[in-house]
Amino acid sequence: CDPEAVAEARAHQDRLTKPRGSLGVLEDVAVRLAGIAAVSPPPVPAPAALAIFAADHGVHAQGVSPWPQEVTQQMVGNFLAGGAVANAFANQVGATVRVVDVGVAADLPAAPGLAIRKVAYGTADLSQGPAMTREQAVAALEAGIETARELVAEGARCLVTGDMGIANTTASAALVCAFTGRDAAEVTGRGTGVDDETLARKIEVIRRALHVNGLIREGGSTGAGGGSAGADGTGGGGAPGDGAGAVPGLEILAAVGGLEHAAIAGFILGGASLRVPVILDGVIAGSAALAAAALAPDALDHCVAGHRSAEPGHTVALAHLGLRPLVELELRLGEGTGGLLAHPLVCAAARVLHEVATFDSAGVTEKES
Amino acid sequence: CDPEAVAEARAHQDRLTKPRGSLGVLEDVAVRLAGIAAVSPPPVPAPAALAIFAADHGVHAQGVSPWPQEVTQQMVGNFLAGGAVANAFANQVGATVRVVDVGVAADLPAAPGLAIRKVAYGTADLSQGPAMTREQAVAALEAGIETARELVAEGARCLVTGDMGIANTTASAALVCAFTGRDAAEVTGRGTGVDDETLARKIEVIRRALHVNGLIREGGSTGAGGGSAGADGTGGGGAPGDGAGAVPGLEILAAVGGLEHAAIAGFILGGASLRVPVILDGVIAGSAALAAAALAPDALDHCVAGHRSAEPGHTVALAHLGLRPLVELELRLGEGTGGLLAHPLVCAAARVLHEVATFDSAGVTEKES
Repeated sequence: CDPEAVAEARAHQDRLTKPRGSLGVLEDVAVRLAGIAAVSPPPVPAPAALAIFAADHGVHAQGVSPWPQEVTQQMVGNFLAGGAVANAFANQVGATVRVVDVGVAADLPAAPGLAIRKVAYGTADLSQGPAMTREQAVAALEAGIETARELVAEGARCLVTGDMGIANTTASAALVCAFTGRDAAEVTGRGTGVDDETLARKIEVIRRALHVNGLIREGGSTGAGGGSAGADGTGGGGAPGDGAGAVPGLEILAAVGGLEHAAIAGFILGGASLRVPVILDGVIAGSAALAAAALAPDALDHCVAGHRSAEPGHTVALAHLGLRPLVELELRLGEGTGGLLAHPLVCAAARVLHEVATFDSAGVTEKES
Repeated sequence: CDPEAVAEARAHQDRLTKPRGSLGVLEDVAVRLAGIAAVSPPPVPAPAALAIFAADHGVHAQGVSPWPQEVTQQMVGNFLAGGAVANAFANQVGATVRVVDVGVAADLPAAPGLAIRKVAYGTADLSQGPAMTREQAVAALEAGIETARELVAEGARCLVTGDMGIANTTASAALVCAFTGRDAAEVTGRGTGVDDETLARKIEVIRRALHVNGLIREGGSTGAGGGSAGADGTGGGGAPGDGAGAVPGLEILAAVGGLEHAAIAGFILGGASLRVPVILDGVIAGSAALAAAALAPDALDHCVAGHRSAEPGHTVALAHLGLRPLVELELRLGEGTGGLLAHPLVCAAARVLHEVATFDSAGVTEKES
């Protein structure tokens, strides 16, 4: 982020006809946008483009979701037909929708709005070993970077992360454990709605995944350890292959992430490199952002947390990343729905810096100090 | 609200291609919109019209605000010139802006976008006696009702409450005390930014106002008492003139409210009678809504709480009204800014009922139960 633009935006905001600080969290968003764009006032980040990265998960075989795996593919069809909630929300905020197949467990027919960048027919079962090879994780990261590049080339001025993948809250919870050092029971939620028995199984599966992938140290503490170890770009001890030349963030991502998590991490890196703000959706994006932060800590300065999902792991991820979400409405749908809802709020924050008069220019008296 | 439309909207929402309940608070908003419009799916409530009711306050003389009283008038000029935050946010969400002078302490020149419905040149000092006569309160209520009628006739399909009035958080806090029975110290905040000394004075002024207007019973408990006495339409004991034929809600409003509070209460009643949703802004709207609820409890079913302001009295008012706000970003500006930000979220909730496919129509498999 550009410190000069940040300082300029902050100073300008304080001269506008409103009590200082009275726009709360949006004042920080406006300043952050200036830092991202390296100019004050920053451009209003519109239009937005939503990328829904779709992939399947080997861990589905462990019974962690009540939804059949085919729903991933069926929902891709629904997105392309314009029938999902993400489509309705995109219409509301004037965003385009791109679906990116990075790992659906079936061959999808070509269709307008669908990019096929399939890395694999789903991941391997993370509770039995690494979900992806390192090469697969890198390929999925690249698919995300490339998607960001394409959407910006097509005119997007804001990127919104989206996901579709039955069982992907399991991979998300495992990533959050590995990057933050928290226990599976603290970060695992009911996803799209699992019962008590399935929730207990899900927690067990995640613990097994952390063990089998060497992401729990002796004594039970997890991968990257507590604190901000994941955010300093070095990952943490205990990750597999932490010898010379290893990139632990990438190893963790490959071990327990999904192909869509890797693609979203790449999407964040791509947006950051293009100085375009990236609005993060829920727990899938939050856990992917932990991976992105491990790979390139500065990339997170280019992100805005769109919403806080109902999943407990999301709150843990946001706290670890130091991000405050804009929308808190107990959504637990994914697809990018929470990120889309935040887009008008982000634009409103930027508009203030463009359109609001200063005390001087409007002839409004300032408060007595 | 229409119970049949409510039931239909709820049933339809449960058939859509998303896990049940996964849109959190927005699912309740969608259902409420159906009830308001008495049809399912309800129309997407756009465009919105913001009405900014402007008025001055005799209590300003007690030193409850660091801002000079002239700022009310100056900000009206700023709204009309398009230079305020409310204008920027209205542009963002496609809303029109109407400024209504119900009580500015100066004669305003005619201007496009300004409706002059002045009831008085500001209220009397509520810490010395009633802020308004009963006739003034009724006239301001009527100005609000009439404004709602006009805006809907001009094409608005959603109304957003706005306010401008230096010192109006003092009147708001007094209203919240009187309608909920809470103590001034619990509900009084820093408004647009007062220091500790001014805050202490503000609390004392509000206590004096409640006493002098007979809104505190022996033993210190306040006007309408705790619980939901204010919401059942009967107001509470202790209000002045609680003999036969008195309308305590109106008496409380006249005693410690502002002209803009009365107008906003009328605006809510007007919107409700036209079956158009009213998005409430912050603490000024919240305290006005307590008065509206006392006058016509059902009117509140037609409201959506736009945001939760940083003022403690707003949280008390929302809890008393049983409303859950959509945006929680620590805004403390007023003008209708928080209500405007909620508008795209309200529209998104309605769009879901129109645009999202059902499991059957999209060929998506439902989860195993």
